[in-house]
Amino acid sequence: MKLNQIMNNLNPQQLLEALQWRYATKVFDATQKIPDDVWQTLKSALVLTPSSYGLQPYKFLVIDSPARRAELLPHSWNQRQVVDASHFIVFAAQTKVTEAHVDKLIHHTSHARQIPADSLSSYRGVMVGDLINGPRAKIAREWATRQTYIALGNLMTCAAVLGVDACPMEGFVPAEYDRVLGLNGSGYASVVCCALGYRSANDKYAALAKVRYEASDLVSVV
Amino acid sequence: MKLNQIMNNLNPQQLLEALQWRYATKVFDATQKIPDDVWQTLKSALVLTPSSYGLQPYKFLVIDSPARRAELLPHSWNQRQVVDASHFIVFAAQTKVTEAHVDKLIHHTSHARQIPADSLSSYRGVMVGDLINGPRAKIAREWATRQTYIALGNLMTCAAVLGVDACPMEGFVPAEYDRVLGLNGSGYASVVCCALGYRSANDKYAALAKVRYEASDLVSVV
Repeated sequence: MKLNQIMNNLNPQQLLEALQWRYATKVFDATQKIPDDVWQTLKSALVLTPSSYGLQPYKFLVIDSPARRAELLPHSWNQRQVVDASHFIVFAAQTKVTEAHVDKLIHHTSHARQIPADSLSSYRGVMVGDLINGPRAKIAREWATRQTYIALGNLMTCAAVLGVDACPMEGFVPAEYDRVLGLNGSGYASVVCCALGYRSANDKYAALAKVRYEASDLVSVV
Repeated sequence: MKLNQIMNNLNPQQLLEALQWRYATKVFDATQKIPDDVWQTLKSALVLTPSSYGLQPYKFLVIDSPARRAELLPHSWNQRQVVDASHFIVFAAQTKVTEAHVDKLIHHTSHARQIPADSLSSYRGVMVGDLINGPRAKIAREWATRQTYIALGNLMTCAAVLGVDACPMEGFVPAEYDRVLGLNGSGYASVVCCALGYRSANDKYAALAKVRYEASDLVSVV
């Protein structure tokens, strides 16, 4: 069944307007908070992120405490989005992939689909053979980081279609973030952040022309 | 200005339905093609992907030729999405980041915003100091790959809200793809793929329960 047979999804023009509307917000209006229903949906969107094999090798840390945000600020080149945005999310990726991670997914799949775990043994074998004993084992941490960036891409687009502003941030000191957030030894490390909220009327970046290469440069039909 | 003041964007429930509706489509209906206006929007969505510093260190290859798709099939574990989907996109990331890449962006920014390139010298300096001479220089290829995964996340979500099915694919042999697509020596290498189109009524995966960890497991408020 096509989605547009069951619900009012966006038409192409509306999606394009949302994507044109979004930009990396530099100045957030610190007085505006994301309404709870919108935030719950963005949180669900993070959870629903597609990942390779479905392994979900990440955690999303929502930094609610103003004190902790203030502590992160100097490790973020003092970018005020960290403290002014309604929500500030740190994306942490698994630092390795183990059989325990694979077994956790097998267990959940078995439960969610009400099928015996044994029936998933070939699926399990493929994951172990690739990520633990195979070609991707050496880059497992990086593989997990890549999945985390899918979550970032998903979140930014979801925010845009809901009319929420966002600012992705790689400009921070991961080692300091890991220390402040107690991630050392947790099996996860901070890789990227995203501030969410509403743009300030004073953000001059909102009015700047978007800079993108030509479609003919970025997209080739072969 | 909030987006919902200027257009009919999605409400949270509609977005959630779209994200629940999507899944990694295993069987595409080979007879159904994405209408041109929808495809043009998905292509624009790729171009509009946010990237770090705005450097857009990627190319999107749309594999249109049935012969070339057939050639890729054996290097894709014979996953039929490669040949059956309406559109099949190979995401290629830059293999390095050079001053020429930075200067290209400076030139485009100067042109798009009608400001002198000289006024962007500190912005240029930050990019060069980070990606070419600084901390990220050693992982520049991987950094480019991460940006490419933002594009993948963005594309999958855009497809979902337009009612288009998608299947992200890491299960292919990048070296063979690079050979078939003539990427060797181009400065780009294939990193991930995405098939787009419409699910077949015979895809039993469409009806399976989604497997995601609990929000309380993936999202922490700190």
